[in-house]
Amino acid sequence: MPDNTTTVAEMRVWMTQFVAERQWEKFHSPKNLAMSLAIEAAELMEHFQWEGVEESRTIMRDPARLAAAGEELADVVAYALALTNALGIDLSETLRAKMAKNAVKYPASG
Amino acid sequence: MPDNTTTVAEMRVWMTQFVAERQWEKFHSPKNLAMSLAIEAAELMEHFQWEGVEESRTIMRDPARLAAAGEELADVVAYALALTNALGIDLSETLRAKMAKNAVKYPASG
Amino acid sequence: MPDNTTTVAEMRVWMTQFVAERQWEKFHSPKNLAMSLAIEAAELMEHFQWEGVEESRTIMRDPARLAAAGEELADVVAYALALTNALGIDLSETLRAKMAKNAVKYPASG
Amino acid sequence: MPDNTTTVAEMRVWMTQFVAERQWEKFHSPKNLAMSLAIEAAELMEHFQWEGVEESRTIMRDPARLAAAGEELADVVAYALALTNALGIDLSETLRAKMAKNAVKYPASG
Repeated sequence: MPDNTTTVAEMRVWMTQFVAERQWEKFHSPKNLAMSLAIEAAELMEHFQWEGVEESRTIMRDPARLAAAGEELADVVAYALALTNALGIDLSETLRAKMAKNAVKYPASG
Repeated sequence: MPDNTTTVAEMRVWMTQFVAERQWEKFHSPKNLAMSLAIEAAELMEHFQWEGVEESRTIMRDPARLAAAGEELADVVAYALALTNALGIDLSETLRAKMAKNAVKYPASG
Repeated sequence: MPDNTTTVAEMRVWMTQFVAERQWEKFHSPKNLAMSLAIEAAELMEHFQWEGVEESRTIMRDPARLAAAGEELADVVAYALALTNALGIDLSETLRAKMAKNAVKYPASG
Repeated sequence: MPDNTTTVAEMRVWMTQFVAERQWEKFHSPKNLAMSLAIEAAELMEHFQWEGVEESRTIMRDPARLAAAGEELADVVAYALALTNALGIDLSETLRAKMAKNAVKYPASG
């Protein structure tokens, strides 16, 4: 599947081009992008708003609902990449380092 | 930089292992993960809560603030990957398709 | 104006009746209501997503935009009242006590 | 209980004074307040992040957890009142009108 060969850098370039073609750099300040990310995260939550916690797993058996939620997740990731670009950081390195920190905070049992 | 060689699949494996080592699969329902993603997105917003829109770009000149915001962004991405895993979708393919849809909705000028 | 004479208890009754008439008590668990409140808060943010901080004050000179944002704020308050009802607490007393706590945390200058 | 006698206007005055004593009016633009409201809503969600939907109702039997969640709800309401003040609207009238609109959208059964 594409996730096996797509690098973070490639996805970042998709966003850079999308933003440049629309001259949206002026809107893409860190404050606006963090706000936009939170807005999309809320739209993603809407798909599970009134469901039970376990009931929400049944989405995997419903292709239409799964596709709709996937699109919201994609919008969240799009803004996460746009913010990565705006901040000029390395996302995978930042993630790896934060997960190492989280691993200390929440030690694996056994 | 690592983003040039790290694939989405690799980052997904980091999350799969982190979750498995802690036996957190039972908590990682789509509803809980969407909620967690929104919580982390809000923590990211806090870094820019009282700043002006343009002022928020100055974070790039302050390594300590940049690192702190990067860590929150990493937590957002961690939950986005965990939800990708829980939904069993291909993230880069879903993102590519959604961006194609957004490109129609917001045509590039010129 | 109505705010001068409307008590918190009256607004709470509005919500209690609205929920009872639709038999929505079963959906109104604290978890679902907190999630719903966050979703409405994000819809409120959308009205100011790409504006500058000072620019967002111009909404007061645009009756149509003001009415639209007001409706989102009302939805936020509706869920805040529903959660107050679900938790069975006194909202004005809780607010007064929390503001006293905040006043210690952020002392007034001079 | 205080909710029976406290009007919306009284709570709005609490906020007006709190903000004035700290000269925070300059920070209280609609954009910043909507963002702050969303941040506090996320902090409220954290109290129910990993719980089941029905399980979250058990908070009512745990005074310490109830008080902690109540404080987060109070922070949400504080920002909702601050935004009401910034927008210069009547909150109870706006809520009443929006609930009438919601009642049409979601008709009561039977």
